[in-house]
Amino acid sequence: MFQRIDHIGIAVADLDAAVALHEATYGMPVVHRETVADQGVEAVLLDVGENHVELLSPLGDDTPVGRFLAKRGPGLHHVAYQVPDIEAALAALRAQGVRLIDETPRTGIRSSRVAFLHPAASGSVLTEIVEPATLHP
Amino acid sequence: MFQRIDHIGIAVADLDAAVALHEATYGMPVVHRETVADQGVEAVLLDVGENHVELLSPLGDDTPVGRFLAKRGPGLHHVAYQVPDIEAALAALRAQGVRLIDETPRTGIRSSRVAFLHPAASGSVLTEIVEPATLHP
Repeated sequence: MFQRIDHIGIAVADLDAAVALHEATYGMPVVHRETVADQGVEAVLLDVGENHVELLSPLGDDTPVGRFLAKRGPGLHHVAYQVPDIEAALAALRAQGVRLIDETPRTGIRSSRVAFLHPAASGSVLTEIVEPATLHP
Repeated sequence: MFQRIDHIGIAVADLDAAVALHEATYGMPVVHRETVADQGVEAVLLDVGENHVELLSPLGDDTPVGRFLAKRGPGLHHVAYQVPDIEAALAALRAQGVRLIDETPRTGIRSSRVAFLHPAASGSVLTEIVEPATLHP
């Protein structure tokens, strides 16, 4: 069902410093930058092979990532697995009784289609599934 | 320098439940299980495409993963990036002034060679680099 790790999401307090670390020090190219108002984040996506690192900077304290930073500090925020067909993946998860945050896909960055599982159903790991836009041209 | 995400490490309180979630619900095959006494963990490795999920169960409370669980609860513990030549990667990181936990590689699971960066140098994300054993037969 899951093809690969699509990305890890990292909550950052200083986006410029985090971009510099991943781009200049680690050598990962920045491939996308997007403000996702309804998720309250500015997101920067970098490539590492076929996987990505998604740096997440909150647009305010009263956002999911803002609250995460206040509670836990910067660090690993979520993992996303790539799926070829997000409706089929959601149906398979639902059939196994997995609790979902998103019952239907919503639009993620770069026009991907995404859905989050509920952490209570995913071992306390915030887990996202992603169908990239390039898979549904 | 980094070829892909080698794995994400997840700290778990109930290893059997975490294996069941990843294997049965997510469909990831278990490919390796190993007790790493000097790291104080029992580790289970599952495949997801060319990437892996490493489930980490502490052998005791007074171990790094045991202390992580007591402080933060189960969840994402570290990320590991795959490199073709770990000595070259460590030299490149050192040349850029990156603080390291491991100045020289040590043996990880499945006879890989691994080293950890210092979280103070990696944006508070515990970051590992891995040269898989299959790359140095």
